[in-house]
Amino acid sequence: MQFIYNNSGINELKINKLRAELSEYIIYCKAGVQERNYEMEEAALCLTDDKNILKEVLRMVDRKKTEKLKYIINIGIGGSNLGTKAVYDALYGTVDIFQQSRYPKIIFLDTTDPEYLFQFDQFFKESITQESEVIINIISKSGGTIETAVNGEIVLHLFKDKFKNWKERCVITTDKNSQLWDNATIAGIDVLEIPKKVGGRYSIFSPVGLFPLALCGIKVEKLLLGATIMRDRCLKQEEDKNIALTSAAILYEHLKEEVVINDNFYFHMEFESLGKWYRQLMGESIGKNGTGTTPTVSIGSTDLHSIVQLYLGGPKNKYTSFISTNLFKEYNLSSLNVLTHIKEIEGKSAGDIMKAIQQGTIMTYKNLNLPYTETILETINEEEIGAYMQFKMNEIMFLGSLMKVNAFDQPQVELYKTETEKILGG
Amino acid sequence: MQFIYNNSGINELKINKLRAELSEYIIYCKAGVQERNYEMEEAALCLTDDKNILKEVLRMVDRKKTEKLKYIINIGIGGSNLGTKAVYDALYGTVDIFQQSRYPKIIFLDTTDPEYLFQFDQFFKESITQESEVIINIISKSGGTIETAVNGEIVLHLFKDKFKNWKERCVITTDKNSQLWDNATIAGIDVLEIPKKVGGRYSIFSPVGLFPLALCGIKVEKLLLGATIMRDRCLKQEEDKNIALTSAAILYEHLKEEVVINDNFYFHMEFESLGKWYRQLMGESIGKNGTGTTPTVSIGSTDLHSIVQLYLGGPKNKYTSFISTNLFKEYNLSSLNVLTHIKEIEGKSAGDIMKAIQQGTIMTYKNLNLPYTETILETINEEEIGAYMQFKMNEIMFLGSLMKVNAFDQPQVELYKTETEKILGG
Repeated sequence: MQFIYNNSGINELKINKLRAELSEYIIYCKAGVQERNYEMEEAALCLTDDKNILKEVLRMVDRKKTEKLKYIINIGIGGSNLGTKAVYDALYGTVDIFQQSRYPKIIFLDTTDPEYLFQFDQFFKESITQESEVIINIISKSGGTIETAVNGEIVLHLFKDKFKNWKERCVITTDKNSQLWDNATIAGIDVLEIPKKVGGRYSIFSPVGLFPLALCGIKVEKLLLGATIMRDRCLKQEEDKNIALTSAAILYEHLKEEVVINDNFYFHMEFESLGKWYRQLMGESIGKNGTGTTPTVSIGSTDLHSIVQLYLGGPKNKYTSFISTNLFKEYNLSSLNVLTHIKEIEGKSAGDIMKAIQQGTIMTYKNLNLPYTETILETINEEEIGAYMQFKMNEIMFLGSLMKVNAFDQPQVELYKTETEKILGG
Repeated sequence: MQFIYNNSGINELKINKLRAELSEYIIYCKAGVQERNYEMEEAALCLTDDKNILKEVLRMVDRKKTEKLKYIINIGIGGSNLGTKAVYDALYGTVDIFQQSRYPKIIFLDTTDPEYLFQFDQFFKESITQESEVIINIISKSGGTIETAVNGEIVLHLFKDKFKNWKERCVITTDKNSQLWDNATIAGIDVLEIPKKVGGRYSIFSPVGLFPLALCGIKVEKLLLGATIMRDRCLKQEEDKNIALTSAAILYEHLKEEVVINDNFYFHMEFESLGKWYRQLMGESIGKNGTGTTPTVSIGSTDLHSIVQLYLGGPKNKYTSFISTNLFKEYNLSSLNVLTHIKEIEGKSAGDIMKAIQQGTIMTYKNLNLPYTETILETINEEEIGAYMQFKMNEIMFLGSLMKVNAFDQPQVELYKTETEKILGG
């Protein structure tokens, strides 16, 4: 993975000063990783090469995966959902029509949208014929998430109405000794543990992400390998290798200079969910104390025909992180029919076209002096996706440290929960 | 449709002053509509009750719609795609797995992502068995959009390899006398016309949107009816009825006061594409001359578990437009299983839960003094979706007028196109 920052808009002296400021924090994180310190706030850094967790997950996969498995119904919201969906979409794509024979698939139930649940209900009643076709995977760190409880109830009820062994086809992932953990173990339902100090948005390499992803055939060992290599790279002091350090410094300096938006511009439509995962990671980690950068997600080339006019012609309040890959699948155009007047595309592959559009876009940002960096994945596979996610988790921890905010809590989220409970209670 | 703005953060005196400023422009627009003036920049206002266009579209639907029609392959990007997808997703939902027997479906090909095209290729070769199962709908206003040309070539080529009558199953929507129009008519392919002055982002009620939507069973007459009623409401001077006028004034005043982000927070996951449509409409229309509000899209309740920490605890640089509906489909929870400890959900429907979360969220914005308005659709149907889209198109025209920018061009978009063409040419 490459990180190119010569047009970041921040000069090297400033970046170096901030790198130096972070050196103590990096030493602290590195020591924590070496001690496998699951008590520190940065506990998530220990996940990528935790053999016990991986073993536990693969053991559960072995026990639950059936020949006939078609659907993993993944019930979780926010950090219990976004990372899994990010990896799944990045590797399998988002259009189910095109993949009618690929199984098992993950069905994500996050919010309690009634229209959607109504469709799910009909689908479940009509299309599921055997209990071995389904695994119900319920994820809630606290065990008390309202949406997850509602969706869990609905799915378990539908399952019980139709089949006998509902407990056998259910797995619950939660904090050890949460109320949900206790209920599940009393009922005899299998549980997977989220380490106490690993928050939702940092939990992709815990059973939260590993279990459903491994179930649907994604090589989680490769995911973890990519993440581990990146974690170690981002705990090094050598400034040119530690891309999380550099990236955090650039984000910090832009925020100080009132560049309030960080647009994450992915040149792959399959990466949109990855962008949404990062949006939570940044938004929830550093959006506090009246400050914080607002992350946005754009998709190339789609959004060039949408919001890019604003990016190029509007106010200069954005710093752009371009994300792309070096290696495209090739898709060659073999004929010209009615669209013969567009000579530029003749003899080109779809990949050529995408690369040219991407380079044309970046060149324009450069010409207009709009600040940007480029993150370039070697290709689209488990290792590179794992590496990207780890890069970003390190970056956000470092950014939190520079900003002197707690990158691991989300105090204001309680406010709407309290109001909602008042309404539901009354 | 209701528009509630008592917590907009802008006082009534200021809003009234801006309403007065717009009165001449509204008179101008109204006169244009009465004269059916397709030469004015605001030509899109004439579309909603244009009987000729509707007749032409329905005639084409009659000719092309077959008993066996399964897939409308919609090839277009930006304004040629986002409005159609917005309506389609809002009415049918986004999860194809749940709708395995609903036909015809629209397949949207916008960008030239090679991974995606590779999957499409396999799908087309394996799953399409008869030519009457497919309509290829190519949309490009200028006729020269690179992505549309590439995707058009690919699909036409796949079709020709397999079937004879490719011209019969193809429709092209473009400006009259564009190069594409001429090529198509010479080749004997059916064409539909986009009125010259109707730009992509304002074209949903032209054949761009009406043809594919009518083909897949959406009641376009109802869509147009809702839009027409809203258009007339938004060309009235009575301030309490003209919600586009009020909304534009609030957006304008916030922008002046450095509230640089307008978050469009939809309490329906099916409305995400509607949000992306609006994001183009706002971004491309007013993002110029170094100014413009940055539109973002959030989804309830999903994003409460993601970016809302930033919205509540971060910098006060956002004005939020909540969008919801009064009438939910009910989905009742009938049992409590392992999640028995969450008492609040007992006896509630999924709709109750969603409403409580939504009200809890809005109450929190109010308590924190964060500026917001509420747009409440009566229900989710063609009429209300049509009305919402027209409301927003009027609002953006009015906002452009207040800002004294041309809300109908996109000059900076040419910059990356030029760079891209250089790269493709060399």
